[in-house]
Amino acid sequence: MPQFDTVIRNGTLATASDVFAADLGVIGGRIAAIGAGLGPGTREIDAAGRLVMPGGVDGHCHLDQPTSDGSQSADDFETGTRSAACGGTTTVIPFACQFKGQSLRDAVTDYHRRADGKAVIDYAFHLIVSDPTDQLLGQDLPALIHDGYTSFKIYMTYDDMKLNDRQVLELLSVARRDGAMAMIHAENADFIGWLTDRLLAAGHTAPRYHADSRPMLVEREATHRAIAMAELADVPILIVHVSGREAIEQIHWAQGRGMRIYAETCPQYMVLTEHDLHGHGMEGAKCICSPPPRDKANQAAVWDALAGGTFHIVSSDHAPFRYQDPKGKMLHGADTPFNWIPNGVPGIETRLPILFSEGVKKGRISLQRFVELSSTNPAKMYGLHPRKGSLAIGADADIVIYDPDRKVTITNAMLHHNVDYTPYEGLEVTGWPETVLSRGEVVVEGGACVAQPGRGAFLRCDTPDLARPKVGAD
Amino acid sequence: MPQFDTVIRNGTLATASDVFAADLGVIGGRIAAIGAGLGPGTREIDAAGRLVMPGGVDGHCHLDQPTSDGSQSADDFETGTRSAACGGTTTVIPFACQFKGQSLRDAVTDYHRRADGKAVIDYAFHLIVSDPTDQLLGQDLPALIHDGYTSFKIYMTYDDMKLNDRQVLELLSVARRDGAMAMIHAENADFIGWLTDRLLAAGHTAPRYHADSRPMLVEREATHRAIAMAELADVPILIVHVSGREAIEQIHWAQGRGMRIYAETCPQYMVLTEHDLHGHGMEGAKCICSPPPRDKANQAAVWDALAGGTFHIVSSDHAPFRYQDPKGKMLHGADTPFNWIPNGVPGIETRLPILFSEGVKKGRISLQRFVELSSTNPAKMYGLHPRKGSLAIGADADIVIYDPDRKVTITNAMLHHNVDYTPYEGLEVTGWPETVLSRGEVVVEGGACVAQPGRGAFLRCDTPDLARPKVGAD
Amino acid sequence: MPQFDTVIRNGTLATASDVFAADLGVIGGRIAAIGAGLGPGTREIDAAGRLVMPGGVDGHCHLDQPTSDGSQSADDFETGTRSAACGGTTTVIPFACQFKGQSLRDAVTDYHRRADGKAVIDYAFHLIVSDPTDQLLGQDLPALIHDGYTSFKIYMTYDDMKLNDRQVLELLSVARRDGAMAMIHAENADFIGWLTDRLLAAGHTAPRYHADSRPMLVEREATHRAIAMAELADVPILIVHVSGREAIEQIHWAQGRGMRIYAETCPQYMVLTEHDLHGHGMEGAKCICSPPPRDKANQAAVWDALAGGTFHIVSSDHAPFRYQDPKGKMLHGADTPFNWIPNGVPGIETRLPILFSEGVKKGRISLQRFVELSSTNPAKMYGLHPRKGSLAIGADADIVIYDPDRKVTITNAMLHHNVDYTPYEGLEVTGWPETVLSRGEVVVEGGACVAQPGRGAFLRCDTPDLARPKVGAD
Amino acid sequence: MPQFDTVIRNGTLATASDVFAADLGVIGGRIAAIGAGLGPGTREIDAAGRLVMPGGVDGHCHLDQPTSDGSQSADDFETGTRSAACGGTTTVIPFACQFKGQSLRDAVTDYHRRADGKAVIDYAFHLIVSDPTDQLLGQDLPALIHDGYTSFKIYMTYDDMKLNDRQVLELLSVARRDGAMAMIHAENADFIGWLTDRLLAAGHTAPRYHADSRPMLVEREATHRAIAMAELADVPILIVHVSGREAIEQIHWAQGRGMRIYAETCPQYMVLTEHDLHGHGMEGAKCICSPPPRDKANQAAVWDALAGGTFHIVSSDHAPFRYQDPKGKMLHGADTPFNWIPNGVPGIETRLPILFSEGVKKGRISLQRFVELSSTNPAKMYGLHPRKGSLAIGADADIVIYDPDRKVTITNAMLHHNVDYTPYEGLEVTGWPETVLSRGEVVVEGGACVAQPGRGAFLRCDTPDLARPKVGAD
Repeated sequence: MPQFDTVIRNGTLATASDVFAADLGVIGGRIAAIGAGLGPGTREIDAAGRLVMPGGVDGHCHLDQPTSDGSQSADDFETGTRSAACGGTTTVIPFACQFKGQSLRDAVTDYHRRADGKAVIDYAFHLIVSDPTDQLLGQDLPALIHDGYTSFKIYMTYDDMKLNDRQVLELLSVARRDGAMAMIHAENADFIGWLTDRLLAAGHTAPRYHADSRPMLVEREATHRAIAMAELADVPILIVHVSGREAIEQIHWAQGRGMRIYAETCPQYMVLTEHDLHGHGMEGAKCICSPPPRDKANQAAVWDALAGGTFHIVSSDHAPFRYQDPKGKMLHGADTPFNWIPNGVPGIETRLPILFSEGVKKGRISLQRFVELSSTNPAKMYGLHPRKGSLAIGADADIVIYDPDRKVTITNAMLHHNVDYTPYEGLEVTGWPETVLSRGEVVVEGGACVAQPGRGAFLRCDTPDLARPKVGAD
Repeated sequence: MPQFDTVIRNGTLATASDVFAADLGVIGGRIAAIGAGLGPGTREIDAAGRLVMPGGVDGHCHLDQPTSDGSQSADDFETGTRSAACGGTTTVIPFACQFKGQSLRDAVTDYHRRADGKAVIDYAFHLIVSDPTDQLLGQDLPALIHDGYTSFKIYMTYDDMKLNDRQVLELLSVARRDGAMAMIHAENADFIGWLTDRLLAAGHTAPRYHADSRPMLVEREATHRAIAMAELADVPILIVHVSGREAIEQIHWAQGRGMRIYAETCPQYMVLTEHDLHGHGMEGAKCICSPPPRDKANQAAVWDALAGGTFHIVSSDHAPFRYQDPKGKMLHGADTPFNWIPNGVPGIETRLPILFSEGVKKGRISLQRFVELSSTNPAKMYGLHPRKGSLAIGADADIVIYDPDRKVTITNAMLHHNVDYTPYEGLEVTGWPETVLSRGEVVVEGGACVAQPGRGAFLRCDTPDLARPKVGAD
Repeated sequence: MPQFDTVIRNGTLATASDVFAADLGVIGGRIAAIGAGLGPGTREIDAAGRLVMPGGVDGHCHLDQPTSDGSQSADDFETGTRSAACGGTTTVIPFACQFKGQSLRDAVTDYHRRADGKAVIDYAFHLIVSDPTDQLLGQDLPALIHDGYTSFKIYMTYDDMKLNDRQVLELLSVARRDGAMAMIHAENADFIGWLTDRLLAAGHTAPRYHADSRPMLVEREATHRAIAMAELADVPILIVHVSGREAIEQIHWAQGRGMRIYAETCPQYMVLTEHDLHGHGMEGAKCICSPPPRDKANQAAVWDALAGGTFHIVSSDHAPFRYQDPKGKMLHGADTPFNWIPNGVPGIETRLPILFSEGVKKGRISLQRFVELSSTNPAKMYGLHPRKGSLAIGADADIVIYDPDRKVTITNAMLHHNVDYTPYEGLEVTGWPETVLSRGEVVVEGGACVAQPGRGAFLRCDTPDLARPKVGAD
Repeated sequence: MPQFDTVIRNGTLATASDVFAADLGVIGGRIAAIGAGLGPGTREIDAAGRLVMPGGVDGHCHLDQPTSDGSQSADDFETGTRSAACGGTTTVIPFACQFKGQSLRDAVTDYHRRADGKAVIDYAFHLIVSDPTDQLLGQDLPALIHDGYTSFKIYMTYDDMKLNDRQVLELLSVARRDGAMAMIHAENADFIGWLTDRLLAAGHTAPRYHADSRPMLVEREATHRAIAMAELADVPILIVHVSGREAIEQIHWAQGRGMRIYAETCPQYMVLTEHDLHGHGMEGAKCICSPPPRDKANQAAVWDALAGGTFHIVSSDHAPFRYQDPKGKMLHGADTPFNWIPNGVPGIETRLPILFSEGVKKGRISLQRFVELSSTNPAKMYGLHPRKGSLAIGADADIVIYDPDRKVTITNAMLHHNVDYTPYEGLEVTGWPETVLSRGEVVVEGGACVAQPGRGAFLRCDTPDLARPKVGAD
């Protein structure tokens, strides 16, 4: 065996299935060997007392994504990927979002331009289809899937992006035929509109009413409908950012009927509640995202579904808007009514620490399950496995060396995103990423990003096995 | 890195999470390295075109287990473990069964005597508690758990072993306090007794009536009750040999409520049906086991639960009785009424091939899921992981090299157990184990067992993490 | 007590709760007394061996309802009510259907014109809202509810009538505030459109493909969504013409959560199956209705829900189109593709005989349940009780005298509607209405209608108690 | 029509289906006529402003029932029926309880002796089978069913009465074959025993721990098991005194599968909670019954199931023990541990007022549903309909004239039982029975019982239709 470029020595390796002591050797940016007492590396990293895990794969985040309301994403591909890397994530999959009227290919081109020269870690793209023309369904989307954009997101709400059921079915048919994973934002737009108008008519404009405009029922209904469409089109789907019990119950029910319904949740549904929208003045705007955080009982349901098998991946849904900013949460000033406040919370850097601390350290999930939810399964879900999300021989040496015992109180000052707040300000966590490698190269060291913008590469995704329809039992 | 004792070269490694090409090096009976182009080994095995997987862990089988009705287990630890090894299994966990009146320690001693000098692969013991005296609950069982017998089985049926609900609760309390995994055979004894007497009174004695005496309902009720007891005692349990939809629904329901209810199924519930009990004369006796095989719709439900997450392990429940034998299926001659026919089917050697062929090759489950269900999870379930059930560095080099493409028509003549039939006679499967290593030593080669009886070692089990009660979400 | 106008003597009276022998005396068109050995009546009717029940209330039928596709309702208020009366029904509630662009009040005026001078029995109107303008929601609908049109139907499918979720919510808000019963046709229009286009594209135009274009799933999804809207608006709803298991399960689930979700089914879902759409040529068109008939297993589920409490009313959904008719089933000739065939089956006359024979005589439901489902509950559901649907003192003397033992083979020749076929041709039933009274007047005698068109009166409906929101338990 | 013995004039009659103004005439103890302006009666009762309803049928109460622990029923047939009558009940169905070793016929004889000459209203007997010998199953029970004892109760708990599953199945077989209604007390005896011993071992002996010894789970499990046994034996059953959500869910689930599972609840589960067991000293003993009262959320579930169709009857489960009494709640003095305190609460007189006030007056159930639950359905459930539980012509003139607006604060002083407390002390209710007739004879007038002990007659019950197995849909 040739000399290693890098050897990570004395650590505890953790994969989605196993935890064991071993050294890990890297050659040419890939994992070349795992073993006891590996030969020397040009660079040696001592990981004694540390966990050595596949770097996180954030399967749901928004970077430099223009919006139709004039708000502005706080993070571009540089700040966003830097923040991700510092949080232990080595692959991000943001969105290339089609505007209505725009060709999907043009949207992809535009996003490549946004990403070029900026990313510090590797990235792929999900597509967002907002205008499923015949051209798109028949030509553009299949071609893009073939080119490595093998997942796309469908919105059942938001005026500028929502699709009707017929359009969803057409897209699911493409997913089935051409091999793509459909991600579905499941909230009923009409329900939200009806509630919002009633709240506004009653003078209820404060941030807290965001939660009242999107109760659990709004999500449950759309989840049931999405499942029905997947059943009709006979294709797996992924329900993104599931927030609580009633939606989980629908998903669990469908899984119990043998359907391949996958589900994602996010840290905001594990540690925030709607009470966090109740702060003074606009304070609650910081935690406005959709679906909104629920309550403690729903948090418990989310944890149960994480510990059991109902959820498959944990993403950040990082959607960064600055708080004190006329292009951010205060889009219409300090009295911006809740329905005009840009939706989303930042969290690309805190995803792993929160899941690790609240999950693994508190005994709710195993370390293997942590790796599976935050790295291995997202890579599998989107056709990047085993290149990403694993410690397999031949895999990219995307590795996070994690200090499992470091105690950290989260403050925005310590984070690397370009947002002026974090919804987790003051949250105490145990464990934090220490050193991060991307394709064998150290990109984070001592808590600082040491990588050059532009070193991150675009990843073409394969058709994920998980996207294939169930085989009949007969 | 020192010279390897053995290198398995050019294979495709498969674990519960990953599949990738690599060499695997063994030193001192343990996995020492996994990598590309590993250095030389004293012994080199070419695995090109083969899968290299952790050897199977059969978490449920009966070897040399005396019975109270005069029947006789066909396999002892020599024939049983030889058959297991030839089927790709490298660890078995048979039972040490307490007779009523016997001390549990004496039972364990007796079974060690049965195993000593015979096994060709490693083994641990589950306990069977049939007489939960205060002495047992307060002293013997905790001491044995401490000594590495960390799982025990509870029967809700069979006259000589069944426990009442109160006794089950006492045992679950011990499991919780002292850290053990409780396995539950869930069938309602009274229901069976009532049905059996009615069938016999109507002159229905043929083997096929075995299925009528234990309909799905019998299993569903006991499953619900077992779940209720686990809830009351606040401890995880494993429901063994789940046969069909209604029991699966109960388990899925409990899992959806956040309970840690684990479930096992067996190949007989994937490929046999109650129709297999309908043969001429006593022929159906060959497929009598409890619960009985169900129908095609239930098979489909079993596969759905295997593909989803409801099931955690696949075991053989190998319970070998000879067919043409007055101590076997014909215990009372050629007219033995169904309720006197010894229960159980042989399957320790065919477990992996059937699951692989019907599951992986037919596209119902992934290769990783195959490894998880048949090897990794059983090892985790019973406190043997990562020593067994993984390809982790430092793990025992218990490895099966599997030809994924070999086509085999199963006949009893090719099997190595001491039974005069297989219920799978004539079943065509794709894929068969080729070479098997136990602690680095080749024990099966070219389809033949080359190991000496007695080389298999007894394994002390740890308390499995899976046996720990759920941590509250608050 | 004064002299009775009519005494029905020696019969067995049956109400929704009781069955007992008594005479029944009528004065001034109303039930004046029930008792043993009542004094004489001007007219005496001997009902020995007969059941004396409140006349049927058909809560769902279409009479003289113009359509947008050029097809023509075969029955007007004369033929339709005559057929109803001959089938034992004494009250019908057809629809006053708003065309898009038309004011709701104008629609009502139009339908009164259609009914005036024609009906032989009493009638009320449901409204169909297809264009819920602000004027309608704020003024017209509340005013009409106040005037006695206290129920309205909402379509979730059919291009010319379907409402979106937002519109449905607005209407449910009116129902809640002003006191009306909302009836919902629950099928997902987009699903149907998508399936239909795929079937047509594949050349599948025969009547049988109607069933494939509207599988159970289409109805289940819309049922779940309708329930969610009722939950959001906090108001009871009635799901009409429920056809099978999956929709029933959704309703049962909602009822189990304490919601006031009512449900209707029809004889076509009790005795027809999709196989009845498989006839030669256009034959299957005779049984095209929406939802389509399902299969035997779904029929069984319908009967279970009738015997239990899941269903509340049985209606005919009489929607009469002639078969051999260019304005009927052959709207586009003998090759009319399934999606252009007018939807609906006739059944206003056969409703009671089928429910009685298949239900009561076959032991599936009690005689009281028959009265409840077909007469008392519809009257309660629509604010006509106790004036209609009961044998209460003071109630209109709308009475059917029923021969419970007469055996009849249904043929179209014996029916009184203006349709050239019946889907139940050849069905043998036991029991048939013999004499029918409306407000004390004999309208059917010896199987013939003896009433003058125009004697039937319009009924203003009260707000039904069943339409009131649930009172909190605290 | 002859002269009436009694005419109740100007009242509002309420049955299980209708509410209407009418007079009611009685001849020979039976209802002879209902009508407007009935002719004169020998006795005239003015019921203006009053409800005239069938007298209550209390399908579950314990009178003069000896116990094995030395406690003593506070009420015999005189005080018990007097109290019932004053509460508007005109029929009671207490139990004839077999002691182990006693013949069932002897038990019945004994109870007839206890009842003879004492009852002021009519009564039937349920049997309690505690010793199902072959003689009982094959001879005695069928003979008694034939003689009019067509219902029997099965205990799944209580040491002196509980039956095992096998015994339950044998009894259900008799119920099916000979036509009887089986009532099941569903709590798991082993679960209770295990919990009780742990509570006592921890020194928890106060009354409040009664609730901890029988959590909802104990009832849920037994309910599921009882349903399974009914399914196996293919016969309807009635689950008595259902206390809360989890048991209701099991019953609702079974009903949704088409099973004939009936359910009863009692006022103690509508207005009491386990908090009522928390009083000072032994105070909580007053509310000890089994299952125990639950919490507000469970009360809400009970009301939902009353308003919907899940529950069929409301009984008192009157089980009267005096509080300050060494043969009552203080069986072992002022420190009687919870498990030795006699189980049961008095409530035969308050049953109707509580259900009427909390149910009808608070808008949770309709007046018809009140009559159905408390009178008509119990009569149907036990083969006494239409003789009892209805206002049918020919029915016994068992009538309660009810003042719907009278406000009453319940105190024990105003009640007529022989118990020294009521668990409802201080509860304010609206509505109270004013006059009560039994077979046409006024037995309660102005709140006082005016009937002679012994006038009440024994009632032979028919096989209830509700006890018949479901007819297949095919």
